Amino acid sequence: MSFIVNRRDVDFLMYEILNLDELLASERYQDHDRETVAAVLDLAQQMAEDEFLPCAAELDEHEPVFEDGQAKTPPILKKILKSFVDAGLPTASFDTDLGGMQLPALVSNFVQGIFQAANAPALGYHFLTASNAHMLHACGSESLQAQFLAPMIEGRWLGTMCLSEPHAGSSLADIRTVATPKGDGLYHLSGTKMWISGGEQDISDNIVHMVLARTPDAPAGVRGISLFLVPKYRVNADGSLGDFNNVVLAGLNHKMGQRGTTNTLLNFGESGDCLGYLVGTENEGLKNMFHMMNEARIGVGMLATMSGLAGYLYSLDYARNRPQGRHPGDKDPNEPMLPIIEHADIKRLLLDQKASVEGSLALLSYCAALVDKQKLASSDEEKGRLTLLLELLTPIAKSWPSEFTLEANKHAMQILGGYGYTREYPLERLYRDNRLNPIHEGTHGIHGIDLLGRKVNLAQGATLALFKAEIDRVVGRAQEHQDLATHCNALLEACAQILATVELVNAEPNTRKRLANATLFLDAFGHVVIAWLWLWQALVATEALAKGSDEEAFYSGKLAACRYFFNYQLPKVREQLTLVSELDTTALEIAPEQFIGS
Amino acid sequence: MSFIVNRRDVDFLMYEILNLDELLASERYQDHDRETVAAVLDLAQQMAEDEFLPCAAELDEHEPVFEDGQAKTPPILKKILKSFVDAGLPTASFDTDLGGMQLPALVSNFVQGIFQAANAPALGYHFLTASNAHMLHACGSESLQAQFLAPMIEGRWLGTMCLSEPHAGSSLADIRTVATPKGDGLYHLSGTKMWISGGEQDISDNIVHMVLARTPDAPAGVRGISLFLVPKYRVNADGSLGDFNNVVLAGLNHKMGQRGTTNTLLNFGESGDCLGYLVGTENEGLKNMFHMMNEARIGVGMLATMSGLAGYLYSLDYARNRPQGRHPGDKDPNEPMLPIIEHADIKRLLLDQKASVEGSLALLSYCAALVDKQKLASSDEEKGRLTLLLELLTPIAKSWPSEFTLEANKHAMQILGGYGYTREYPLERLYRDNRLNPIHEGTHGIHGIDLLGRKVNLAQGATLALFKAEIDRVVGRAQEHQDLATHCNALLEACAQILATVELVNAEPNTRKRLANATLFLDAFGHVVIAWLWLWQALVATEALAKGSDEEAFYSGKLAACRYFFNYQLPKVREQLTLVSELDTTALEIAPEQFIGS
Repeated sequence: MSFIVNRRDVDFLMYEILNLDELLASERYQDHDRETVAAVLDLAQQMAEDEFLPCAAELDEHEPVFEDGQAKTPPILKKILKSFVDAGLPTASFDTDLGGMQLPALVSNFVQGIFQAANAPALGYHFLTASNAHMLHACGSESLQAQFLAPMIEGRWLGTMCLSEPHAGSSLADIRTVATPKGDGLYHLSGTKMWISGGEQDISDNIVHMVLARTPDAPAGVRGISLFLVPKYRVNADGSLGDFNNVVLAGLNHKMGQRGTTNTLLNFGESGDCLGYLVGTENEGLKNMFHMMNEARIGVGMLATMSGLAGYLYSLDYARNRPQGRHPGDKDPNEPMLPIIEHADIKRLLLDQKASVEGSLALLSYCAALVDKQKLASSDEEKGRLTLLLELLTPIAKSWPSEFTLEANKHAMQILGGYGYTREYPLERLYRDNRLNPIHEGTHGIHGIDLLGRKVNLAQGATLALFKAEIDRVVGRAQEHQDLATHCNALLEACAQILATVELVNAEPNTRKRLANATLFLDAFGHVVIAWLWLWQALVATEALAKGSDEEAFYSGKLAACRYFFNYQLPKVREQLTLVSELDTTALEIAPEQFIGS
Repeated sequence: MSFIVNRRDVDFLMYEILNLDELLASERYQDHDRETVAAVLDLAQQMAEDEFLPCAAELDEHEPVFEDGQAKTPPILKKILKSFVDAGLPTASFDTDLGGMQLPALVSNFVQGIFQAANAPALGYHFLTASNAHMLHACGSESLQAQFLAPMIEGRWLGTMCLSEPHAGSSLADIRTVATPKGDGLYHLSGTKMWISGGEQDISDNIVHMVLARTPDAPAGVRGISLFLVPKYRVNADGSLGDFNNVVLAGLNHKMGQRGTTNTLLNFGESGDCLGYLVGTENEGLKNMFHMMNEARIGVGMLATMSGLAGYLYSLDYARNRPQGRHPGDKDPNEPMLPIIEHADIKRLLLDQKASVEGSLALLSYCAALVDKQKLASSDEEKGRLTLLLELLTPIAKSWPSEFTLEANKHAMQILGGYGYTREYPLERLYRDNRLNPIHEGTHGIHGIDLLGRKVNLAQGATLALFKAEIDRVVGRAQEHQDLATHCNALLEACAQILATVELVNAEPNTRKRLANATLFLDAFGHVVIAWLWLWQALVATEALAKGSDEEAFYSGKLAACRYFFNYQLPKVREQLTLVSELDTTALEIAPEQFIGS
């Protein structure tokens, strides 16, 4: 079995749930069919298994080091990323006229995911490059695109997002980096950026930083933020590299996990002129930044999911092969030990992983399909509808997998017991890698505020109605199956409670009180979303079994995971939403001095 | 503020909750009073802060290495453990006639805990030595005690527990190490032991292994297990050290955390005669082993709790000092940023930590006081009652802190954001250290089966009734206070559901079905236990405030944490117990091939 992907599940999501065939039949994707899709996934899986997976532990142990002001990365990292580039894989998500493969996002998302499961920190360097290039294509001037886009798409130059500063992480309103107009359309950058993934490395010929900064006369706060493209090396008119642009590595952060990706503190313009190009217009930096950030957020959800999947597959294989103990009540020591997958609690730990991981994968795939459908939308109204749904789901697509596949990795480690806790096995590494995901690209708490404070009220509430319609669509079909009736009712009830909660919260005029339990709402809403996607999967599985499919194990496994999620996880939503709707102020009201009494 | 202990809370638990004064008034503890107790805690805190805490990161980074068949530990480790021994601190929990301080366990537990918060892996070497020595004192022959006890109590020789083998972790019935009688009361040991903490080190003059093994004609399974004392160096009649006893280090395990404690694979008798002494009688090894194991399990609960406390205190300090962002709805960027402790979600993350950590500390302190009261019990009946309560609470005292203070460490890291994820700050280390606790000394799942399969039915159910009486005692007093009435009702309801669940589960004849959701029961019962202890603390705080205490912040903080636990955590119990009592078989029934469909 593969330890990084379950291709049967990928096909299930692409073809049986999200109707990739319909996308492939469109003019936009006419160069692709089931065969080319399988071929690119085969290529990705083979390269990931042959090259990326075997060195994952080594990259974790020998992280990049700071030497003479440079970040030195291990040779093996350069080697595997060269294979990735040489095979043209960075181009998966770009249009043909930009030199890309023009794959549906539903497919390119899995290409990315397969590498993330094998070796997330290695793929990290390309992960942000893709979202930067998409943003540059959407927001940058023609000349900027002409200079920078092709090498980024091809993966020869790698990209970064430079938002945070040492004193300003979540609070972008307070960044201090300054961009002073030079007079010829260029700007002098000056400031310090923190937590910049891939901010310095010796892998690519150039690095393209996307930097948030303020112009000297910009208004305070987020309304005065602009976005600049700042290359590590300046680029001559003919595309060749010019002088060093004075983006200086001040230090590497030493992380708990994701160690193969450099994480940097960068000084801009301290040692000499650091030139940047404005992307879009002044003071609209945040809007442009969100173009790449939203994509990165969904990418973080995928990153988490694939750590979760890798842990799930590994612990499943271990549970099948590790003999230990006997059934309770059946203690004859002369009988052979059972493989631990026979023990109820091990099954529960596996089922919980399956429910979280495959549920998350369904969510990320659904989001990817929304992106594809946006591109095919026949009207602005249709496109707007898809955009609103994606906006609503983005905080959940980022946060739910980050929280709950971390729990899945915890379970995977538990299944291996002492072995899981040692560095000789991959579980503890996956768990350390995954722990980053609730922190970066907006902390878990920030996404709660985004969801309850903003997203549920977009378009005067039309967004929530769109989501409810998606649920009704699935429930409507599922209700035709007796076995799914209980789940349908549970989902409708939970969804009704979500809507009622939003109404009750909106009625409260005090903003602090309204948002005091936003994180609970985020988790609960996420549970409802995942329950919906499980019901959908169970529906398709039920129909397949009714048609006499010979894949009984696969489809009945989907039904079991659905039942698990509805019985063990969804019921948690009720009490959480009650707290949110009752505007519980226990947390809001405690004073700093009450925590330890001094 | 201290980053390892809140002495005000320690005093609260000792004097206001658990009535240490009454213990100190007894003849057994006549050498101690509030002053000597404070003095030994002062000593522990000062040594822990001055010597153990500053090198914790260094010990994590430079773990012991395997060289020439030996485990080489860093010099700093030897230095601080020498201070610990020189100060006489290993003797804290032993009786005066054994050369100990004869402190109540309620106090010595905090002495241990303070060092665990500062540097758990360093204290690890002494942690098992104490439980081994207690067991040896209770179960060993006089001559064994005469030879081995004093150097162990003094901390000159360190002890280990050798239970697991590479193929047998949880399933002790299947161990294969053999002890062949030599004819002179000694045995030849032969076999391999795995996961042995401190199994080899260069810190102490000798190592005393407590080894589970079978005699050649022993019955199969746990009924044929005996316990042997096996020293690293043989001991001459005059107490001097003799020949190497052929306990050979085969390798070190490289762990995710707790790196300062060696964790070893040991071969017994492979290279030559390895002699062991029988402890107690043949085939009663498991009973004797549990004497030390139960103490170690409660010690693991304390270990987890103190990792949780250290993370709580660190993140609290950070939250008070880190400015970031403004209140939602109050976004004027010209206003200064707030310390993050002002944000509702940060307060929630701190409150959850406070509730878990101080709740766990109350539980471990309650258990320690039970141990003290056993020693003072005036009748066998009274002693039996205390023993049953301790037996019932042991799986919870081990498991609840292991699970929920790990979550607390996750929250602490979240509060520090990117900083929390780096190795420059202690949070990620505490989180890694703590992750061991749900695995060792019985996995989380094993304790669930122990609790639901055995402990709740001890003494024909009298045990549960004793626990219920403890709850009623607190509720009876709390009901006198209007403000606590809701909590009282919630606790009684949850407790009633526990009892009803046990009854429903007991009525099911199929053992596998009965125990299929035992882990959920463990967590839910733990929540009820912690809720009871929070109500107790809130009761005492309410009474103190009513008496006009000038420690308003401390006591009202206790009330806030109690309210948090009852509003945010206790409600989770209902759905969990419903699953247990309805004997949900979703997990039990899934077949291995259904997980991924092949």
